[in-house]
Amino acid sequence: MDELEIDAVAEADLDDPVLVEGLPGVGHVGKLAVDHVLEELEGESTLVRRVYSQEFPPQVTIEDGVSELTCAEIYAITVPEGRDVLLLTGDNQAQTNEGHYVLTTAFLDIAEEFGASEAFALGGVPTGELIDEYAVVGAVSDESLLDPLEEAGVEFREDEPAGGIVGVSGLLLGLGERRGFESACLMGETSGYLVDPKSARAVLEVLEAVLEFDLDYESLDERAGEMEDVIGKIQEMEQQQQNMEMPTDDDLRYIG
Amino acid sequence: MDELEIDAVAEADLDDPVLVEGLPGVGHVGKLAVDHVLEELEGESTLVRRVYSQEFPPQVTIEDGVSELTCAEIYAITVPEGRDVLLLTGDNQAQTNEGHYVLTTAFLDIAEEFGASEAFALGGVPTGELIDEYAVVGAVSDESLLDPLEEAGVEFREDEPAGGIVGVSGLLLGLGERRGFESACLMGETSGYLVDPKSARAVLEVLEAVLEFDLDYESLDERAGEMEDVIGKIQEMEQQQQNMEMPTDDDLRYIG
Amino acid sequence: MDELEIDAVAEADLDDPVLVEGLPGVGHVGKLAVDHVLEELEGESTLVRRVYSQEFPPQVTIEDGVSELTCAEIYAITVPEGRDVLLLTGDNQAQTNEGHYVLTTAFLDIAEEFGASEAFALGGVPTGELIDEYAVVGAVSDESLLDPLEEAGVEFREDEPAGGIVGVSGLLLGLGERRGFESACLMGETSGYLVDPKSARAVLEVLEAVLEFDLDYESLDERAGEMEDVIGKIQEMEQQQQNMEMPTDDDLRYIG
Amino acid sequence: MDELEIDAVAEADLDDPVLVEGLPGVGHVGKLAVDHVLEELEGESTLVRRVYSQEFPPQVTIEDGVSELTCAEIYAITVPEGRDVLLLTGDNQAQTNEGHYVLTTAFLDIAEEFGASEAFALGGVPTGELIDEYAVVGAVSDESLLDPLEEAGVEFREDEPAGGIVGVSGLLLGLGERRGFESACLMGETSGYLVDPKSARAVLEVLEAVLEFDLDYESLDERAGEMEDVIGKIQEMEQQQQNMEMPTDDDLRYIG
Repeated sequence: MDELEIDAVAEADLDDPVLVEGLPGVGHVGKLAVDHVLEELEGESTLVRRVYSQEFPPQVTIEDGVSELTCAEIYAITVPEGRDVLLLTGDNQAQTNEGHYVLTTAFLDIAEEFGASEAFALGGVPTGELIDEYAVVGAVSDESLLDPLEEAGVEFREDEPAGGIVGVSGLLLGLGERRGFESACLMGETSGYLVDPKSARAVLEVLEAVLEFDLDYESLDERAGEMEDVIGKIQEMEQQQQNMEMPTDDDLRYIG
Repeated sequence: MDELEIDAVAEADLDDPVLVEGLPGVGHVGKLAVDHVLEELEGESTLVRRVYSQEFPPQVTIEDGVSELTCAEIYAITVPEGRDVLLLTGDNQAQTNEGHYVLTTAFLDIAEEFGASEAFALGGVPTGELIDEYAVVGAVSDESLLDPLEEAGVEFREDEPAGGIVGVSGLLLGLGERRGFESACLMGETSGYLVDPKSARAVLEVLEAVLEFDLDYESLDERAGEMEDVIGKIQEMEQQQQNMEMPTDDDLRYIG
Repeated sequence: MDELEIDAVAEADLDDPVLVEGLPGVGHVGKLAVDHVLEELEGESTLVRRVYSQEFPPQVTIEDGVSELTCAEIYAITVPEGRDVLLLTGDNQAQTNEGHYVLTTAFLDIAEEFGASEAFALGGVPTGELIDEYAVVGAVSDESLLDPLEEAGVEFREDEPAGGIVGVSGLLLGLGERRGFESACLMGETSGYLVDPKSARAVLEVLEAVLEFDLDYESLDERAGEMEDVIGKIQEMEQQQQNMEMPTDDDLRYIG
Repeated sequence: MDELEIDAVAEADLDDPVLVEGLPGVGHVGKLAVDHVLEELEGESTLVRRVYSQEFPPQVTIEDGVSELTCAEIYAITVPEGRDVLLLTGDNQAQTNEGHYVLTTAFLDIAEEFGASEAFALGGVPTGELIDEYAVVGAVSDESLLDPLEEAGVEFREDEPAGGIVGVSGLLLGLGERRGFESACLMGETSGYLVDPKSARAVLEVLEAVLEFDLDYESLDERAGEMEDVIGKIQEMEQQQQNMEMPTDDDLRYIG
């Protein structure tokens, strides 16, 4: 195994496609969003590349007894009425700082190979509290991208995210820009405590407007409903606890 | 010292051998199993390769004052009435993510050199409680391997192991499959708290059926008996404690 | 992306310049100092090099929604009445031991390219308590540098800093000396608890004397004033707490 | 800076020298021992090599204001009436697993260059309690080395050290043996809590017998006396505490 092995599973003839990334992260927002697109546009999508790397954990996932080596997958989607899309998904992030650089470079290489020069990184931005109205916060690699995204409902805030953006999402902007990509990061607000399908929907609604395709949200709303039930039960338990002792934020943390 | 140094200690003429790996891990199940095979089939086995690597800890083991540099060892075993076997054992796992990829690749290289195209990774799967009936849970690199193993008593479960399989065992499936190996992982259920010779026996009984060789289990059962004594004493101590305070699972953890 | 990418943003014709480094560290003294020079001598400074590296965190900073990939920047400053200066600043240190060696080597390469053979590393040395008189402690790569710096007010102490100097500042001395650089480290005393503009001023006053340029300190003194207010409030709070319980040093730690 | 840079400070014509290593470790026994030899045989010793490496911490030490880049040093000692010696000392160990392999390989390369084919690694073995009689425990790369060392007073014990030997000392045996070196590790028993000049003396007395040179121990005994005073005070404090509460082993840990 080399540091990086890219399997060309299939080819696809795309017209000026845009790379859309959704790897695991805060609230699983990016991954939920990208997996939902994949599910909804299944008929139009083709798995074109698999990226294996020593930068991923040394791990296989098991489904019904059959193993699959950890990798990132890139799907080509031909959207009839809108922009063609290269969808990047996977179960893992790189495990080292250097790995993020190595993998992002590989992803941009593949995107370029298919003629892409734009990229959207999807993710979540943690707010620390449960959310009613899901804003989508943005960051772009070039000032010229601010206006069209603001029109699509993205909020650009002076000092957010305060710590910048780390990992593949950040580097798609940073390394992408150095190679001539116009990149944007769309971050759905999310508590940070729970898997958040509602935040994923907010992010996808922006993407729909920008890339001109239509998604049905039934299955994502169902998952959101299930999460609501979970939250409801937690809040109930908190209420009961409150009669005995002060509840803490930690009760909510990392559930989901 | 290069990153990887492979000593060709001896050669062996094997007929379609199968690689069987048992490095240290949960309950030491894999290592116990492989070391038991080595002990039982001593007359038929030849040490053929030693693998030294910077990925191992920088360590020598000392026995009666004489040092031995940490390495993995591969033995060739000619089984008269059954399949030839390449046995992989050692005292250490790689110390980094990348190291697992590097070492597994080296092990598969060696197996290929001896004509192998099948591999069994032996290990344990932790259940968190003491066990009466030792099931063997399986995972395979290809669906076609499910039926023959199920007939040999291996259980394939929908969502197990939940976190996938990490380390060399996982990569023997994942990287093996990418090189055309048919690989299976046999995981004996084990509490996860103790070195578990009974779990190792359960795994070996499956292997016996599949590879058609016969093992005597006297020495392994003796070790199992010693462990039973240890468990008995722990349970007695717990009983006594229970009169004073609630016992915890932690009392059992990491003993052995 | 290679391990290291150096963008030649502009060229500059400098006369025997001196490299002055101020990356983030204790009390942000070095970075505050270098950024202040940059602000005061803005008219005379040109950004000449950007250094990108996999040794930096995989991160973009975001300002008003626009991203910038983490890097180190080197500015050329032509000081009319004094020595020419190459100013090294940035938002991050390397993330690994090896990274400090890699980046320092790159910085010295660039300095050499512009004809430099002297370097000043600016930083802070933590005292553990709030400070009235800001001494500047020094370390040099060669004994011959002791006298001129002592005349400029730098204190050289027998056993300080006790743990030596780590990171880029230390290696500018250590690796610099191996390449023929005369290097000195100027460390302003600072509590270690707070961002410390006063310590930065103390360091800059030494630098002014040595390199013969003049700085205005109004903006730095303003920031110092703001920090004084913060300290005042903390001390007030401590006073109030003291009536209830013993205060601890930890109350001050990592504020700023 | 390359991963490894070796400065040839001087040459020396040695007759079948033996490498003696004493880098920092348990009780600083190895380093104390080697530094004492260097002090006592100052007239006969020449610094021949300095080894710089990215595997060392990115650090300079400061003495009287002057910096020195972290390195390992090798001295050639011509012992009139005994074996010639190559003495390896330094302030730091490698910071990664791989680094131990890289540095030990470099040290063995240098030793070979000077004609050495034997090595002694000096160190301490922690006992967890204060010691009256300082035994020296040994480990060797080859069985044939057991007898002569046993005659010199070294104890070889069945299962000690239980965890093997890690770091450069271990690899001098393990990697050394692979290159044809006859290597031994001499480990003075030491509490593990304190810098231990008495343990260093015990180790050196074995070395004296084996290599046939004579050392004066006045300065080492003085340091031992100072440590005795420290231990005495700690024990006194413990006695006083005992009247109030049960003392713990932790009171002794990491003092010195």
